[in-house]
Amino acid sequence: MTPPSLTAPGLTPPDIVRCAYAELVVTDLAASREFYVDILGLVVSYEDENTIYLRSLEEFIHHNLVLRRGPIAGAAVLAFRVRTPGDVDLAEAYYQALGCRTERRPDGFVRGIGDAVRVIDPLGFPYEFFYAVDHVERLAWHYELYTPGALVRLDHFNQVTPDVPRGLEYLEGIGFRVTEDIEDEDGIVYAAWMRRKDTVHDTALTGGAGPRLHHVAFSTHEKHNILAICDKLGALRRSDAIERGPGRHGVSNAFYLYIRDPDGHRIEIYTQDYYTGDPDNPVVRWDVHDNQRRDWWGNPVVPSWYTDASVVLDLDGVPQPLAEREQPSEMAVTIGADGFSYTRKGDVDEGFKLGAQL
Amino acid sequence: MTPPSLTAPGLTPPDIVRCAYAELVVTDLAASREFYVDILGLVVSYEDENTIYLRSLEEFIHHNLVLRRGPIAGAAVLAFRVRTPGDVDLAEAYYQALGCRTERRPDGFVRGIGDAVRVIDPLGFPYEFFYAVDHVERLAWHYELYTPGALVRLDHFNQVTPDVPRGLEYLEGIGFRVTEDIEDEDGIVYAAWMRRKDTVHDTALTGGAGPRLHHVAFSTHEKHNILAICDKLGALRRSDAIERGPGRHGVSNAFYLYIRDPDGHRIEIYTQDYYTGDPDNPVVRWDVHDNQRRDWWGNPVVPSWYTDASVVLDLDGVPQPLAEREQPSEMAVTIGADGFSYTRKGDVDEGFKLGAQL
Amino acid sequence: MTPPSLTAPGLTPPDIVRCAYAELVVTDLAASREFYVDILGLVVSYEDENTIYLRSLEEFIHHNLVLRRGPIAGAAVLAFRVRTPGDVDLAEAYYQALGCRTERRPDGFVRGIGDAVRVIDPLGFPYEFFYAVDHVERLAWHYELYTPGALVRLDHFNQVTPDVPRGLEYLEGIGFRVTEDIEDEDGIVYAAWMRRKDTVHDTALTGGAGPRLHHVAFSTHEKHNILAICDKLGALRRSDAIERGPGRHGVSNAFYLYIRDPDGHRIEIYTQDYYTGDPDNPVVRWDVHDNQRRDWWGNPVVPSWYTDASVVLDLDGVPQPLAEREQPSEMAVTIGADGFSYTRKGDVDEGFKLGAQL
Amino acid sequence: MTPPSLTAPGLTPPDIVRCAYAELVVTDLAASREFYVDILGLVVSYEDENTIYLRSLEEFIHHNLVLRRGPIAGAAVLAFRVRTPGDVDLAEAYYQALGCRTERRPDGFVRGIGDAVRVIDPLGFPYEFFYAVDHVERLAWHYELYTPGALVRLDHFNQVTPDVPRGLEYLEGIGFRVTEDIEDEDGIVYAAWMRRKDTVHDTALTGGAGPRLHHVAFSTHEKHNILAICDKLGALRRSDAIERGPGRHGVSNAFYLYIRDPDGHRIEIYTQDYYTGDPDNPVVRWDVHDNQRRDWWGNPVVPSWYTDASVVLDLDGVPQPLAEREQPSEMAVTIGADGFSYTRKGDVDEGFKLGAQL
Repeated sequence: MTPPSLTAPGLTPPDIVRCAYAELVVTDLAASREFYVDILGLVVSYEDENTIYLRSLEEFIHHNLVLRRGPIAGAAVLAFRVRTPGDVDLAEAYYQALGCRTERRPDGFVRGIGDAVRVIDPLGFPYEFFYAVDHVERLAWHYELYTPGALVRLDHFNQVTPDVPRGLEYLEGIGFRVTEDIEDEDGIVYAAWMRRKDTVHDTALTGGAGPRLHHVAFSTHEKHNILAICDKLGALRRSDAIERGPGRHGVSNAFYLYIRDPDGHRIEIYTQDYYTGDPDNPVVRWDVHDNQRRDWWGNPVVPSWYTDASVVLDLDGVPQPLAEREQPSEMAVTIGADGFSYTRKGDVDEGFKLGAQL
Repeated sequence: MTPPSLTAPGLTPPDIVRCAYAELVVTDLAASREFYVDILGLVVSYEDENTIYLRSLEEFIHHNLVLRRGPIAGAAVLAFRVRTPGDVDLAEAYYQALGCRTERRPDGFVRGIGDAVRVIDPLGFPYEFFYAVDHVERLAWHYELYTPGALVRLDHFNQVTPDVPRGLEYLEGIGFRVTEDIEDEDGIVYAAWMRRKDTVHDTALTGGAGPRLHHVAFSTHEKHNILAICDKLGALRRSDAIERGPGRHGVSNAFYLYIRDPDGHRIEIYTQDYYTGDPDNPVVRWDVHDNQRRDWWGNPVVPSWYTDASVVLDLDGVPQPLAEREQPSEMAVTIGADGFSYTRKGDVDEGFKLGAQL
Repeated sequence: MTPPSLTAPGLTPPDIVRCAYAELVVTDLAASREFYVDILGLVVSYEDENTIYLRSLEEFIHHNLVLRRGPIAGAAVLAFRVRTPGDVDLAEAYYQALGCRTERRPDGFVRGIGDAVRVIDPLGFPYEFFYAVDHVERLAWHYELYTPGALVRLDHFNQVTPDVPRGLEYLEGIGFRVTEDIEDEDGIVYAAWMRRKDTVHDTALTGGAGPRLHHVAFSTHEKHNILAICDKLGALRRSDAIERGPGRHGVSNAFYLYIRDPDGHRIEIYTQDYYTGDPDNPVVRWDVHDNQRRDWWGNPVVPSWYTDASVVLDLDGVPQPLAEREQPSEMAVTIGADGFSYTRKGDVDEGFKLGAQL
Repeated sequence: MTPPSLTAPGLTPPDIVRCAYAELVVTDLAASREFYVDILGLVVSYEDENTIYLRSLEEFIHHNLVLRRGPIAGAAVLAFRVRTPGDVDLAEAYYQALGCRTERRPDGFVRGIGDAVRVIDPLGFPYEFFYAVDHVERLAWHYELYTPGALVRLDHFNQVTPDVPRGLEYLEGIGFRVTEDIEDEDGIVYAAWMRRKDTVHDTALTGGAGPRLHHVAFSTHEKHNILAICDKLGALRRSDAIERGPGRHGVSNAFYLYIRDPDGHRIEIYTQDYYTGDPDNPVVRWDVHDNQRRDWWGNPVVPSWYTDASVVLDLDGVPQPLAEREQPSEMAVTIGADGFSYTRKGDVDEGFKLGAQL
């Protein structure tokens, strides 16, 4: 079979507004409900015995997250909203031109969404594009529903793929713009962040065996909201759900936390990146050896954060096969016996923050 | 003289990216510098004996605020960035078609800005449109420069105009979208908020004698940053610069503070409104009698906030004449002997928060 | 009848540890429960059809607030914990020596409290002193119970009495120390703050017709917690419960909010005063005309805050008669036609913050 | 030589008010000044070429920290304020009765402090007791001096000693009360926290080779202040000064950060523990294997935090010899190949947070 093309020169890609929702397959729906609703406080827009539709407090479209009961945990789709109904047609034509599998459903794939197309993209990810959506109440003013760790927006996805520049070529082709990346002195790209809305990203590519979903990120208003989630996980004796952080990212300048749901799906809680909406928004390039790129405070990235990710499913719900990354991994070049990082470039003294922590 | 048209059907308006900077004429440049630099912590991009160029910490274009010494305090221009160099041409042609005075300067009107056009718009405001701009360092990661009340972005302008629907017709014609407004049961519109970027507004129209500039707003990351500005003004025995707030807006759901600079120009400090970037973002309409519309906590709006605003200057620096509002004023219909407001619609009991406070 | 003495020279007063709980009579217990439990998030230690016992999240004694159903709203008691069981004896003897009515109950007056004495003190207030108390779980680590506006401690009482120096003489006699006060250039004292624990106060005296209870104050950890209470009251369309603030106090340097419960009892929410535990802790004296004494940001004090307070009950539950203040009132000397305040001493210019707001 | 006794039955110990200041010997005074003044924002009360006296923003005694230039970095003294001048006499007599070396100086050992006694206590630590002190301005209201990470109080010391129960016996003898400790099922005590003022501690004992100073802790008002210090260290490319955290303690429930000064002296930044002033304040006992005892979020304690500490000096400035801990170390029993920790007691599954992180 011919692999899909990365770009379709001459074809107009869909005008993507933003990342809109993810559909995750979970193996124990009750356990997932406890995690996302009881602990994280996402709002149930609809639920039945097999599915839960969740949204953040400032959202007005039907959902930002669909949890669907299934035998194997995985990411069923990453969905983007497009600007007009016609953009769904453009998306379908575009991916067909790329040679990708597509499936169009005028009544939508999930509750609350109308006409939509799902595709397996050139990187192997299941993407959905839709315009039509049920409006629900934007609960922004409903402070009686806020928890101390209130999640107010879906912010972004993060995808693992073996060859980041190849992924960038494809995503730039459908209109994404790079805001930041991590490179080394030889030009190897380890990760890149891309946006449609006015934030640092709607999705990011992390180099590694893929296609896999690295995480889905929700926003809070303030940093203390993220700390409150940690405090609550501790109170519930579930602090082992905290994988990494909280901390300040170098990339994006946002404050972050990574937690793992009962199936191991990674959720980031994120706040306070910067406006990127200008056409000439400066791209920030980070040196892979800069110890503050992933955590501005130099705190270590745990190995699981580099190695673990969720499988993604094809349009039939079958896990996609993985391709290994051929270039060096970020983990290998930065930590442990084989890697090195610096706090101050040219400063050879490696303190307790770099070597001894891992 | 024929008044300008409000719209130019058939002409393509410029693609406005966002509000970008304001130029204010101040009568005592040293006093203004103390206010904006020493107290508020804006960063000096450039200054000479007559002018100071200031930016917020996350900005990468040359400035967000120009302070220029002059004999009469006023607003010299409200400047918007457009998407491409060609959009400056579109802007010039558009306003000429409206019958507005325009002035084009390929080298820009102020330092740091290139090819730009300034116009006196149909509402009497001096607007500038530009694409070309010097990039400066985005100081987002320079936490050693942050003060407790750090201002990170320019958020919006707010303009006073007698006839809000007339102003809306014009601004929608050049591409702004309404996000919220304040109306009464007879359809009288008292104020409206309009956006280009993904926030609640890039500018707003407030009904009143105009054209006048109501305020320029800067963003902080968190609410405590705004409180810190109040604390500092108190410590400097300048708490009388605090005009209104801090508080939570009903409109926009943002946390706010209004302060007055040494010339009386009003600056809002603002944080945490919501994402509005979807094409069908729901418009929020507030009842003018709802006591929580302007302050979600029902705290009184001081009369000066309704009555005071900065004169705006024409392209020669001459103050624009004012036209009075013919419809009822929001202040008159909501506070004092002639107005009424409610906390709970239909609840006749007016407590100490409504009547007795003013 | 001979009025009670203010001091009992030669007698050892009880060693008071801190303010511990207040008992308030409320006329609609369900409405009060909604206010204190559903809205403010205080924890129910025990409740029956006539009484609710509430505590803050960091408390380990049985309760900080007792709500008791009754025909007339009032304050039934202000209770202080003493250091040893013997201090209850000392308290009883001390107040008997003053000529005050006392009542001793070895089994306590309310659930959860053991041997206690209640008195009507020389100022007419019902005070209780106890040592024996049931311990309950300190919920400090139970973050799953925290709301965004979590109340973590009882901080202080505030009492209205006509003659503040007279009240000070009595309270210093039983061991309180002054931390701050408000005076004028003639030495008239308008209010004073007194402590036992290491904070600015366990109780304060506010000059006015008394005896009345001005307010009971609970602490939060951070300022955003207080803002969250305001936001929630707005969301519930109960913003008219917000009487004054939020703001920064001059006196105490704490961040504050005053709200009114369904019976009009005033509750302060308070955070971040300073350590006062040293024996020579400096007393801070504020000029009554300093516009930043009550609100550091110069925001106006609403008249109701000066005029309204809860009646207090005698040991039979009968409202205590009021004595008027004979000296000038703080409200009269500072606001309105008869008063004046300054932001900068000697600065005659009174701006919109002083005159025009009230 | 006879070792000193731990207690002096029948003798009245001094009435200690609180921990008051530490004197640290530093090898590069300019580097230390940059760290404590330029980065942390402590206020200089006095400085000359060999010494810098620093205080926190809410302090009214002359200093909380003395930095003195010397050839070997170490802790020269831990100083406590006592309630009366006579308590200095009591302290001198008490330690003489214990058989400890004491030195009395009526004019004080350092600037700003009057009559004081220094001792080498039974654990080998240099302690000072004083009452007389110069008052300086309490800068609490001087918000123009606040940085985003403003330090407002000295909170506590933490001392390393081999035998914690032995240390407790001594410290309880001079009036300290235990608030929390860490034990195992065999009753081995790994650490204990003791207070005089109304907080969780004025000092703590950590089991290990001693006498050494583990850290000195300063308080901020809010958690974001601590995050701001991390952000600033990152901005200055000094993130390697961050040793551990930020995080939430289990013990004390406070939010924390540990940083290391240029000589390796450890400073904790700390906020929001709870009130402990009642005589029957409940003691909290933590299981040494509870993975949330040191960090409520289960984040790993770095080995250096367990192993490193500052030498302490005798009254002649000579480093005290160390005695090793004979009981198991907390590090050995909880992390790595020899130790174990749990998130949920009885839950055998050890996730990535426990084993794989170290």
